[in-house]
Amino acid sequence: MNSRTVADLLSQDITIPEVDIKGWVRTFRANRFIALNDGSTLQNIQCVVDFENFDEALLKKVNTGAAIHVKGELVESLGKGQNVEIQVKTLEVLGESDPETYPIQPKKHSLEFLREQAHLRTRTSTFSAVMRLRSALSFAIHKYFNENGFYYMHTPIITGSDAEGAGEMFKVTNLDLNNVPKNEKGQTDYTKDFFGKETNLTVSGQLEAETYAMSLGKVYTFGPTFRAENSNTSRHLAEFWMIEPEVAFMDLPGNMDLAEDFMKYVLQYVLEHNGEDLEFLDKRQQDEDKRKPQAERNPMTLIEKLKFVTENNFKRVSYTEAIDILRNSKPNKKKKFNYIIEDWGTDLQSEHERYLVEKHFKCPVILFDYPANIKAFYMRLNDDGKTVRAMDILFPGIGEIVGGAQREERLEVLKQKMAAIDIPEEDLWWYLDLRKFGTAVHSGFGLGFERLVMFVTGMTNIRDVIPYPRTPQNAEF
Amino acid sequence: MNSRTVADLLSQDITIPEVDIKGWVRTFRANRFIALNDGSTLQNIQCVVDFENFDEALLKKVNTGAAIHVKGELVESLGKGQNVEIQVKTLEVLGESDPETYPIQPKKHSLEFLREQAHLRTRTSTFSAVMRLRSALSFAIHKYFNENGFYYMHTPIITGSDAEGAGEMFKVTNLDLNNVPKNEKGQTDYTKDFFGKETNLTVSGQLEAETYAMSLGKVYTFGPTFRAENSNTSRHLAEFWMIEPEVAFMDLPGNMDLAEDFMKYVLQYVLEHNGEDLEFLDKRQQDEDKRKPQAERNPMTLIEKLKFVTENNFKRVSYTEAIDILRNSKPNKKKKFNYIIEDWGTDLQSEHERYLVEKHFKCPVILFDYPANIKAFYMRLNDDGKTVRAMDILFPGIGEIVGGAQREERLEVLKQKMAAIDIPEEDLWWYLDLRKFGTAVHSGFGLGFERLVMFVTGMTNIRDVIPYPRTPQNAEF
Repeated sequence: MNSRTVADLLSQDITIPEVDIKGWVRTFRANRFIALNDGSTLQNIQCVVDFENFDEALLKKVNTGAAIHVKGELVESLGKGQNVEIQVKTLEVLGESDPETYPIQPKKHSLEFLREQAHLRTRTSTFSAVMRLRSALSFAIHKYFNENGFYYMHTPIITGSDAEGAGEMFKVTNLDLNNVPKNEKGQTDYTKDFFGKETNLTVSGQLEAETYAMSLGKVYTFGPTFRAENSNTSRHLAEFWMIEPEVAFMDLPGNMDLAEDFMKYVLQYVLEHNGEDLEFLDKRQQDEDKRKPQAERNPMTLIEKLKFVTENNFKRVSYTEAIDILRNSKPNKKKKFNYIIEDWGTDLQSEHERYLVEKHFKCPVILFDYPANIKAFYMRLNDDGKTVRAMDILFPGIGEIVGGAQREERLEVLKQKMAAIDIPEEDLWWYLDLRKFGTAVHSGFGLGFERLVMFVTGMTNIRDVIPYPRTPQNAEF
Repeated sequence: MNSRTVADLLSQDITIPEVDIKGWVRTFRANRFIALNDGSTLQNIQCVVDFENFDEALLKKVNTGAAIHVKGELVESLGKGQNVEIQVKTLEVLGESDPETYPIQPKKHSLEFLREQAHLRTRTSTFSAVMRLRSALSFAIHKYFNENGFYYMHTPIITGSDAEGAGEMFKVTNLDLNNVPKNEKGQTDYTKDFFGKETNLTVSGQLEAETYAMSLGKVYTFGPTFRAENSNTSRHLAEFWMIEPEVAFMDLPGNMDLAEDFMKYVLQYVLEHNGEDLEFLDKRQQDEDKRKPQAERNPMTLIEKLKFVTENNFKRVSYTEAIDILRNSKPNKKKKFNYIIEDWGTDLQSEHERYLVEKHFKCPVILFDYPANIKAFYMRLNDDGKTVRAMDILFPGIGEIVGGAQREERLEVLKQKMAAIDIPEEDLWWYLDLRKFGTAVHSGFGLGFERLVMFVTGMTNIRDVIPYPRTPQNAEF
């Protein structure tokens, strides 16, 4: 790899007599200025061709999307928009790109169109910025946990347990669907299937993560999870990635401390490392906003929104307090909310969460002690018998971004809660074992990775923040 | 989180009047010495109880596996085996562990038994060391790629393409298997399925990774992959994790440079950061070896084997040369190999690979330019028309650990190779697009993560290096 990257060359402030670079043509202006990109940075490097010294047939092949190899001199640029440029000495076209058929032309394409060209869409500035940020966020997450004594754990993707109840599951099978074997009762005979029983794609690694927390202390998962829900919205995917830390001997306040510190760290990381991509997306959002009616515009720019999180303390408020605030709020009294808050016990909608963050507290908010009956069975029951030690973190523009809880560590209470929703003890014998042998207070939370990437990039459709989105009727590529 | 970790306390060389620690009891000796572990390190901290000052009923609950909370003074230890210990002032049992029923007793359990207790097996020294190393290796991989300008990419798990042909695939469906909808031909009507077509679990993210390499330059995947093969061996899993880097403008020698540098980096990382766990597993392997006949013992200790990789240059040898060497080798002539090498074109077995590494070259080996007909369709055909630009990296004790190639970048050649094995062009239209628009030399490789963890930990059954192994007839937990 003797070639340099565009990022490397653009960071030079000296003249270099011989440079060698490969990349793809973004534009070729006036038969003279090639904007070359190689993915190493949002920026292109300008390659200046003295067209009189080059074969016309060769220059005809310098089209948008073509792969080229340039050698020349890196010099100070006299034009504006860049500090340095390459005076091209030799030019080779490695792979052509027919302008008649190449889908990614140097003009504005709709996001919908680009979704159909998902294999080429990272050749645009917007998607390359989004995917570089997705990568940086992933690394920041691993780095945070590594620096804080957590172990990364790969929880299983194929699961024989369907007890978590977080949503509808996909079946995994290698039975011949044209000829499904049946048992005596005329039902599918799963004993003939690969695993000898019914198996599904995981909806969460939490329960397995708890097993490792109760031996290794601090662990986290970061892996794909699945929902077979027929939700064709801009916020749902059938396949998405989740981060789930789980910590032994940590109670709910400790969980809040961890989540706040973690979220601030990863956002601070991209503010420090990905300024160029963030500024580009910030400007993109502002441009989009200009075309919208005032009421639909973002109250903050993208970067302001990230700093709103990193520079504010998260306000901790009980669900009960929050209901009081919402019930007495202007939009509730004036019936501006789509869902009017009346009684304690109702689940909050995104409009309520955003009101609390953006209008009432003007900072990120952590709600805790939710009604037991709107939360999962494994959350620790409070002494009041009606709330659980759950927490949700609410962010501007998006509402809930993190959901977590202190886990029910008491064997008898857990058994009762499982019985109440008909989860057989034998299905989760291993999960109950954690409460039989050396049980202790422990807590954790879950963060949907694509929700985080949406928050950071300002993209409003979840299909635009994952390389190849899986949604109802769509598993292309 | 005011409590400290065992790792933190053991690193102290001063007396601390008040320390506070939570963890699990490994052993309780002579009603006096508690060996406490919290997963933060392989080591236990010794907590010394003056039993005359504690309630006998309380001390009776200090059993192996119990979770306890200890407060006391950290002092220099007079006993051997540790520098510091805790003189216990208060002791609380958080969660008991009935010695009659707790499966993990302080004695040697078989690996087979522990596999059935996979939710508890990280409470043993061996499995906690293995899983800490697994975590450290994961982090080292992300760190290496991040430092070298690669972007992490999440390739899809559910795939609509089954073209890669790397092995049998699991079906993903939400059809009712008791009542599979049929089309006019009497076949399964996949248009009624969630994605509107037949979908499977991925066998590799490579093809999708190529799409991102051809825009972002340097990318890698690190995610789960699947094989529905009925192989009940110590080397096969139905679900395992793979690392697949892919780099634009990189040829096969560049690919070898990358793979060698990468492998040395991650091994060096654990040698530097995980000495304690490695030494434990090194000793474990030596102890195991002592019970084996001489011929079956490991020729190197675990740590020697890691240094064999980090301290040697990898020898690069063509497949054709390797066949010559093997054909003329003593074990081949004396028919000591299980598979005798006769003709050019045969695939190598682990015994041949190990011979080349351990006996002939005495260093890691990279074989390249394999016969086209034993390698995948997407590998670049050499001018000889019969070999492809493939490479395999061979390690001691294990044979092949990395497989990679320069990819076929020429549209017409790729089409011919697909046609020859009946892959319809419309199935991989997007993959062909990469060769239509701005094609260029590019390369990458794949590393099975569990093979790496086996190599590093010395564990000989792949089920012992992943938290919850999925194998035929087994999807427990």
